[in-house]
Amino acid sequence: MDRSIKTVGVIGTGVIGSSWTLFFLARGLKVIVTDPAPGAQERLSTYLEKEWSTMQQAGLHDQASLANYQFVDNIFDHLEQIDLVQETGPERLDFKRSLFSTLDAKAPKDVLLLSSSSGIPSSEFVTECKHHPGRVLIGHPFNPPHLVPLVEVVPHPGTEETHITRAFDFYSSLGKKPILIKRETPGFVANRLQMALYNEAYSLVSRGIVSAADLDTCITSGPGLRWSVTGPFVTNILAGGGSFRHLLEHIGTAGKVWSEDMRKHAFDLNTESISVLDANVQDSIGEIDMASLEKDRDQVLLVLMALKSQTPSFK
Amino acid sequence: MDRSIKTVGVIGTGVIGSSWTLFFLARGLKVIVTDPAPGAQERLSTYLEKEWSTMQQAGLHDQASLANYQFVDNIFDHLEQIDLVQETGPERLDFKRSLFSTLDAKAPKDVLLLSSSSGIPSSEFVTECKHHPGRVLIGHPFNPPHLVPLVEVVPHPGTEETHITRAFDFYSSLGKKPILIKRETPGFVANRLQMALYNEAYSLVSRGIVSAADLDTCITSGPGLRWSVTGPFVTNILAGGGSFRHLLEHIGTAGKVWSEDMRKHAFDLNTESISVLDANVQDSIGEIDMASLEKDRDQVLLVLMALKSQTPSFK
Repeated sequence: MDRSIKTVGVIGTGVIGSSWTLFFLARGLKVIVTDPAPGAQERLSTYLEKEWSTMQQAGLHDQASLANYQFVDNIFDHLEQIDLVQETGPERLDFKRSLFSTLDAKAPKDVLLLSSSSGIPSSEFVTECKHHPGRVLIGHPFNPPHLVPLVEVVPHPGTEETHITRAFDFYSSLGKKPILIKRETPGFVANRLQMALYNEAYSLVSRGIVSAADLDTCITSGPGLRWSVTGPFVTNILAGGGSFRHLLEHIGTAGKVWSEDMRKHAFDLNTESISVLDANVQDSIGEIDMASLEKDRDQVLLVLMALKSQTPSFK
Repeated sequence: MDRSIKTVGVIGTGVIGSSWTLFFLARGLKVIVTDPAPGAQERLSTYLEKEWSTMQQAGLHDQASLANYQFVDNIFDHLEQIDLVQETGPERLDFKRSLFSTLDAKAPKDVLLLSSSSGIPSSEFVTECKHHPGRVLIGHPFNPPHLVPLVEVVPHPGTEETHITRAFDFYSSLGKKPILIKRETPGFVANRLQMALYNEAYSLVSRGIVSAADLDTCITSGPGLRWSVTGPFVTNILAGGGSFRHLLEHIGTAGKVWSEDMRKHAFDLNTESISVLDANVQDSIGEIDMASLEKDRDQVLLVLMALKSQTPSFK
């Protein structure tokens, strides 16, 4: 682990901030955390106590301790002790602009300033950073951050190479799988890929081609199973008998027909289409037991990730 | 298991036909299989011997035996012994039309006639079936059929309800996860969903937003991990705190922006774009060791599927 980063400042203790805090503590880091919402400190404490066993199962760092965090009222007073900030505040441009301006003004120049934002690229909120904007960038996690390894690292055009590398090394050292988004693009990469698939899923179910439950089965018993181990390109290379070009040429004509038909029936999100789709989903899936489903999901994911980490091709 | 189907006729011993044969044998069925290609019988025999251990690991049916198949020159002479045909011949309309016309004329009327076709809906090749076209339909597997549970069951408008149910029950009894495609649609459902995601993946890599290797990591360490247990709709319901409608309304504005940007940069498959993309994939991923990758993948999938089958939410 890169021990140059020992203390992380977490701003915000909503779903993402709490999960980051849990994760950093489990990896043996110290966390200084803040959230102005009433009751935030108690909720965080309850959450950490409850979820610590999951992290024990995933494997704790030698120095991991639930006692290693400090909930503070004003994080600006603690920036001298912090090596890296992971911001998870509201997705509002004015909020992030003002916050990062103050962080940049008050944090020592080597403190990495990372935002978990999924939607606002840092070029938009770095505009008021007058000191060292080159250490500001996005580290966008995938929910829940304490379990799912993906982190999208998205620099703005002025982020310095050295700080991109530091962010990468930091996440990698904790066992995360950071990927580099080379140019800011709406939705970055993971959300776009998901949305592409979801748009077609919404269309197929709205049009009555397949039920919502069967569509879910299609993914979890088909493509989704394979995508947990091989991504689109490696899956394509395997399907092409070792050649990506061969696969593309092979699916070419059929793929064009499918794509054209998908464009023709593209799902349009509006009040009416939401109602139709929601009614379909209610009929087909109905109520789910969130708590047991999430528990079961997390258990399977933990075993799956441990299995992958022991398999040469997927380490 | 539905023991009314004891003997399956497999037509074609390419990648899909061999894998179906292996799967049916492992599930305790008898298989009568044919393929006119020179050397087909020897290749099938070698394949079955080699892959039997995988099926042993997955768990064999009590009556499973590698000796339970018969390679024949003319399957039409054996239709009296066959309860169900799983066709995996070439994807050519003239071929399938002629084949199914003969099958329909010669097979006893209760023999289910299933095609593995991924691209030609059965309404197109059932046209010459003059006897019992109501027992013709698609049972489209997902590669490799001996491991991946998904089967898309796609009736044509004249397929009889009773035969749809029989196909469903047959696949379910073998541990498959059949889904019903209620209306023939180009690419059915799985290939469309994959293509939707792949089109965006091809676009992002071609445009230099992300490397092919990082895009693969994005899926295998992010959405793909989750999709191995929860499909699009259940994933959305969880993200919406129990409400699908809430999720849709919540992602509405952002989702529209992403979707619009994706449409603007839609990947167009042509000779030039294939070359650019292939060069990117070569640079980023290069050669892969197919044999060990497939072996590792199959091992992880076996464990993952066993794990899911023991987990209440994912049985």
